[in-house]
Amino acid sequence: MSRYFTPTLAALEPYTPGEQRKMPDLVKLNANENPYPPSPAVADAVAGVVSGLRLYCDLTEADLCNAIARQVGLPADHILCGNGSDENLLLAIRAFCDGQTPLAFADITYSFYPVLCQLLGVPAHILPVREDFTLDLTAYYGLGETIVIANPNAPTSLLAPVAEIEEVIRRNPDHIVIVDEAYVDFAGEGASCLPLVPKYDNLIVVRTFSKSRSMAGARLGFCAAQPALIADMNRIKFSYSPYNISSLNQAAGTAAMQDDAYFRDTVAKICRTRQETTDALRRRGFTVLDSATNFLFARPAAKPAKEIFEALRERGVLIRYFSAPRIDSWLRITIGTPEQMERFLQELNHILR
Amino acid sequence: MSRYFTPTLAALEPYTPGEQRKMPDLVKLNANENPYPPSPAVADAVAGVVSGLRLYCDLTEADLCNAIARQVGLPADHILCGNGSDENLLLAIRAFCDGQTPLAFADITYSFYPVLCQLLGVPAHILPVREDFTLDLTAYYGLGETIVIANPNAPTSLLAPVAEIEEVIRRNPDHIVIVDEAYVDFAGEGASCLPLVPKYDNLIVVRTFSKSRSMAGARLGFCAAQPALIADMNRIKFSYSPYNISSLNQAAGTAAMQDDAYFRDTVAKICRTRQETTDALRRRGFTVLDSATNFLFARPAAKPAKEIFEALRERGVLIRYFSAPRIDSWLRITIGTPEQMERFLQELNHILR
Repeated sequence: MSRYFTPTLAALEPYTPGEQRKMPDLVKLNANENPYPPSPAVADAVAGVVSGLRLYCDLTEADLCNAIARQVGLPADHILCGNGSDENLLLAIRAFCDGQTPLAFADITYSFYPVLCQLLGVPAHILPVREDFTLDLTAYYGLGETIVIANPNAPTSLLAPVAEIEEVIRRNPDHIVIVDEAYVDFAGEGASCLPLVPKYDNLIVVRTFSKSRSMAGARLGFCAAQPALIADMNRIKFSYSPYNISSLNQAAGTAAMQDDAYFRDTVAKICRTRQETTDALRRRGFTVLDSATNFLFARPAAKPAKEIFEALRERGVLIRYFSAPRIDSWLRITIGTPEQMERFLQELNHILR
Repeated sequence: MSRYFTPTLAALEPYTPGEQRKMPDLVKLNANENPYPPSPAVADAVAGVVSGLRLYCDLTEADLCNAIARQVGLPADHILCGNGSDENLLLAIRAFCDGQTPLAFADITYSFYPVLCQLLGVPAHILPVREDFTLDLTAYYGLGETIVIANPNAPTSLLAPVAEIEEVIRRNPDHIVIVDEAYVDFAGEGASCLPLVPKYDNLIVVRTFSKSRSMAGARLGFCAAQPALIADMNRIKFSYSPYNISSLNQAAGTAAMQDDAYFRDTVAKICRTRQETTDALRRRGFTVLDSATNFLFARPAAKPAKEIFEALRERGVLIRYFSAPRIDSWLRITIGTPEQMERFLQELNHILR
């Protein structure tokens, strides 16, 4: 830190992203990226807006919001887009938390939540997950705090039933409940809380284009909520980044959201590969949680997780290891193409031999 | 505001962007956008990254930083990019201001500064510009506060000499001075404070691709400062938006920055049109400040500014009017193509007749 840095943020510990290593033949399974390219419609959409870049992008993000609204079955005024779903989280936490209203979340979950709390001066209330990594959602009843629940959760890959989440929303009528559904498209029908949005004025559902829409590089997320909450979050947006999403990103997102067939096909392929990889790892003695996401959370039996992580890295296969309490004997493995998972398993065989 | 909105931000007044009206034959001179499209190299650059969008964008923004560094003649570790220069301002103000360290800026300047102060809980110290709208920079000596100076200033279009800004930097050795040079490319040689960056460890120069690079829609800005300050701002970036610039935007920015010939040609055209428009307005009795930007700040004599603004709007020509103290008899007019300015002057003739 320089001598000019504000002392109020001296303790800030920034987010640690997945490693971005460059080497030939690298199999990158460490950032839950989609192994398939985005919809072929994206290229044309993006090309169509380049000459118009001289103008500011659409502040209302109307085309993008409309495409999302049609897809999720809500009116467009229930949608707010973000420069990545991280921005949607920021807008929500800034709008609905403060020094007196903490943010409650699990001890094992997306590690960006505590970072945002630190940055924004919001107290974090950490609720431990159970021994089997499932959420004890009864602990969230009547908390008197803003709540964020990643569902499915990361890095555990586990899904909580909508009925259980709904009970949390119902039992916190005076506080906002944010359900972060970054991975829900991989969780099958009926896993999302989106259908609850018209019913609860304290619910915000957050989604991303980074996973199921194959566009981590396009930085696009959105949230769905009742218009009064969208208006609140827009007040924050217009106070710090009115033009938050470039014309290029808006066009890419609109095209990706409209190509439903491609999306379904991609998700189905990943879910098939997920099952094959789960089986293969279990055959090798791993404990693998039943994943509702595009990654696996797995504990090796034969060797320590960290050792396997490092040996795979040596061999050009990147997965994710967290040296954090409770999960330091586990590995997080993104589902790639069948070929990538084949390579992963081959290298793993070498290491376990 | 919903009943969930944090009371700590109840008084927040979001930024008011220029109107985004859609109508045929609209002449849009209200947002200081460039009338020329971006460099022809941008289209190819953007097309080249679409298939790679499945991966997260480069966290270090290496290609973009390198292209900028070469252009401005500084090492790449002196550069930090933003999702628009608004984000660079946010990162700087968050890193170097707090409840005890106010931000000092002029009463007539970019209206986003006070909004950011409100959002971030930073006291604003407002220093009035002189009667002729020039900055009294001696008032900034030894302030004991973080300082932001837009130079050239908006909406006044006036440039302060580098030597005067340097004196402010020199006389505030224990505080950061941010020089916001959004428009400096239109100010001619020797107008920028960039050459001072190696000399002062408390200087941050902020730039944008929105004006001279014809890419308001691509949301790209950058700042230049010594590496210790860049590291400080990166701590904030990695705590709220680690992947702040999409692969599409990074590619567009890199290509635009590399095409120096196109850039110089575009800027020269706009400066020529600026002189012609200045002369034309003065012939019509307007007081026009000597602009160092891609817009004019002009006071009509024959009719009230607001009336002219509204009449032009009726006729499909959008300019900007601010109903704010000290400037409510002035108009801000973006420099468009010669054809756009011809149309503007024709409609103005009708109104003044």
